[in-house]
Amino acid sequence: MVGVTQRLIVVGGDAAGMAAASQARRRRGRADLEIVAFERGHHTSYSACGIPYWISGAVEDRDELIARDPATFRSDFDIDVRLRHEVTAIDLGRREVVARDLDGGGEVRERFDDLVYATGAVPTKPDWAEDGVAGVFGVQTLDDGAALRDWLDADPAPRRAVVVGGGYIGVEMAEALIRRGLSVTLVEQADQPMSTVDEDMAALVAEAMRGIGIDIRTGTEVTGLDQRDGRVSAVVTAAGPIPADVVVLGLGVRPNVALAETAGIPLGPSGAIRVDRRMRVPGAPGVWAAGDCAESLHRVSGLPVHIPLGTHANKQGRVAGINLGGGYATFPGVVGTAVTKVCELEVGRTGLRERDAAASGFEFVSVVAESTNRAGYYPGARPMTVKLIAERSSGRLLGAQIVGWSEAAKRIDALAVALWNGMTVDEMTGLDLGYAPPYAPVWDPVLIAARKAVDALDRR
Amino acid sequence: MVGVTQRLIVVGGDAAGMAAASQARRRRGRADLEIVAFERGHHTSYSACGIPYWISGAVEDRDELIARDPATFRSDFDIDVRLRHEVTAIDLGRREVVARDLDGGGEVRERFDDLVYATGAVPTKPDWAEDGVAGVFGVQTLDDGAALRDWLDADPAPRRAVVVGGGYIGVEMAEALIRRGLSVTLVEQADQPMSTVDEDMAALVAEAMRGIGIDIRTGTEVTGLDQRDGRVSAVVTAAGPIPADVVVLGLGVRPNVALAETAGIPLGPSGAIRVDRRMRVPGAPGVWAAGDCAESLHRVSGLPVHIPLGTHANKQGRVAGINLGGGYATFPGVVGTAVTKVCELEVGRTGLRERDAAASGFEFVSVVAESTNRAGYYPGARPMTVKLIAERSSGRLLGAQIVGWSEAAKRIDALAVALWNGMTVDEMTGLDLGYAPPYAPVWDPVLIAARKAVDALDRR
Repeated sequence: MVGVTQRLIVVGGDAAGMAAASQARRRRGRADLEIVAFERGHHTSYSACGIPYWISGAVEDRDELIARDPATFRSDFDIDVRLRHEVTAIDLGRREVVARDLDGGGEVRERFDDLVYATGAVPTKPDWAEDGVAGVFGVQTLDDGAALRDWLDADPAPRRAVVVGGGYIGVEMAEALIRRGLSVTLVEQADQPMSTVDEDMAALVAEAMRGIGIDIRTGTEVTGLDQRDGRVSAVVTAAGPIPADVVVLGLGVRPNVALAETAGIPLGPSGAIRVDRRMRVPGAPGVWAAGDCAESLHRVSGLPVHIPLGTHANKQGRVAGINLGGGYATFPGVVGTAVTKVCELEVGRTGLRERDAAASGFEFVSVVAESTNRAGYYPGARPMTVKLIAERSSGRLLGAQIVGWSEAAKRIDALAVALWNGMTVDEMTGLDLGYAPPYAPVWDPVLIAARKAVDALDRR
Repeated sequence: MVGVTQRLIVVGGDAAGMAAASQARRRRGRADLEIVAFERGHHTSYSACGIPYWISGAVEDRDELIARDPATFRSDFDIDVRLRHEVTAIDLGRREVVARDLDGGGEVRERFDDLVYATGAVPTKPDWAEDGVAGVFGVQTLDDGAALRDWLDADPAPRRAVVVGGGYIGVEMAEALIRRGLSVTLVEQADQPMSTVDEDMAALVAEAMRGIGIDIRTGTEVTGLDQRDGRVSAVVTAAGPIPADVVVLGLGVRPNVALAETAGIPLGPSGAIRVDRRMRVPGAPGVWAAGDCAESLHRVSGLPVHIPLGTHANKQGRVAGINLGGGYATFPGVVGTAVTKVCELEVGRTGLRERDAAASGFEFVSVVAESTNRAGYYPGARPMTVKLIAERSSGRLLGAQIVGWSEAAKRIDALAVALWNGMTVDEMTGLDLGYAPPYAPVWDPVLIAARKAVDALDRR
């Protein structure tokens, strides 16, 4: 209906939600589209991924992590941002949401024509962490980060840290706490930390972590806490207690979908919100989802996956916003690329691990090639290990992992683009990658690995 | 004919020739294939690309540049390597070559069934450099490098260097000589040094070069030399003489095809030897060519090009050798990827520059996006400039250039793989590239540039 102002409600004011809101606004003015964004925290659009570096002190000021503040969204984008407002109900039939004012009290009801569900993810929290013992921290939000920093800055300062969970956030937090001078134990239930790469590659990461003094306990489950005067004093495991003045949870996250479930917004098989290519929720007209609460198509396995990551959240929010604004954009899915570092050791991965490839039904070969980041004779040449996984019948690349000591992680991008385009390892041996002695041996590590994979396929 | 030993002659014992020889050997034993390799220099399979770093002192020992020595080829590969033997004639009708023994004198004749022409490239040498004035050096071979090092190590040491030519080798040599403490003037006939990137990007490189004290004279042609007692004292230009105790030629190279021309081995339009996908020379049965003397197909322009580079030489030699050995391999062409650094400034390029795109008949848009190598808040974040050139009608990527201060150059690989696969800039906006604060902003510089290119296309 021409001339009638429509209303967009955004639930969750972080990367995905605010990207959607601002993209919609770029295409539709205030008279055409009113935008209200509810955010239960104190901030909009900040880098949660930066929190470990703020904790370590590498980033000094919390505000550096804030990409765009609410005032800017209000003034430059005419978005009605309401902080400290938690949406408690979505009524799809009546087209309205109920939000509670967490500071002022009371609640508001707002109608919507379109709704962007962008509630993000919530950290996995075991029962023992719910007991109200002081000194146990997640690192999901800026508020979490601030609480942890306050605890670390207290006098006397905590000296013994236990990080529970050896995924990206756990590993990054372990390093951050070592850098702050704490003694750090990392407890991981599985047989390896960094389970986002295969066991052989994870072993290289574990070795580097031990090298900087992190005590790694794998195959160990935390079952409870010991406390003294309401403050944590140890984590309890089957192998005995591990003393701790501070405990950081790095157990991963799950999509924050409780509100959606209650409202009847359908979830996908990954447990996150189902979306189509334009980020619309199928079966819920006018409802969109984006970011850490939404599913993505994995382009290699063909399966829906839940991969919470800021870069996906931004892209998905942008796609939703372009479509909401009357444009056309699709989110093409992911290939599972991720990079991280443990001190100087760099880790990159993309596509399927061996276990994923097997679970997806692929027959595959995998090879590990040792090389260096620079020509062997060039100063500063350091080892680099490249693993490739390729489908046996077709030779198509299925996944890749890189571990190396310098300028290694971002080399995964070339492999991610190869994977994205369905290249075979045989085709990859011909790739024209940058060569100069400061950057690669005359056979780039990626090419060496591709050649090795071709050899492995020939031996089938 | 089963049981009859065949004979392979390799003309030129550097990367391409020796890669061909050793790959052929892997597949065919001595009783089946005799291999003789003639090399007019003192070495086999060395890294010419490493010479600037040996001159600068970053690489201490010349032998570090030698990938594999003649003794290894003889003992491990049963290849009859004859150093200091220059092939002076190839008789395609009689199937024999004539080689002169440069040290012992005399000449040998050897018959062949197959011949690999791998003579490499020869540096462009202006007439004035042929006058026999001492102190003028190319940097094409290890012997060149040794002569230059001896000159630089003399007492009194030369203090003023002029590098003629502002391509990769000129830029690298200018930096090498600055590092050795010389005052360095780089003279370039064109309006910019580093003409392998567009003018706007080259300006960033020139600025960095001036920043480390290199005096750059563009639009300046060297027309002669001044000398004192047979030693160079200045280069002569229209703008006056430039004092020089040492002159280094960095004027690029041309394919070394004189012998081939005389023998009737056909050249392609680029002036290098024509080859098919398997590195056979069409019209010359049993003749193969590989490396810096051979043409490559440019996959973007569709034109044959001459791009002398060690990585191509190795790949082409390997392809020729696999085919000679009875296997099957093809060289898929190049996209013109190259990387270099000027002190800390890193430069990567792939595909077509604006002028190439225009010359190939493409209508295109080009965009330049400014970003950083890390999240803006992460310590050590430095500027990175990404330029993309895309076909106007299709949106297909045609070329990319990156200039940045840290961890920038090898990011060109992801763009090279995108180009290789014919991706459009619109498709590229969805690419799943590695994100973590130490490695990229949440929108990777490549994605930012792709988005900007999409915007530019939308405005058409």
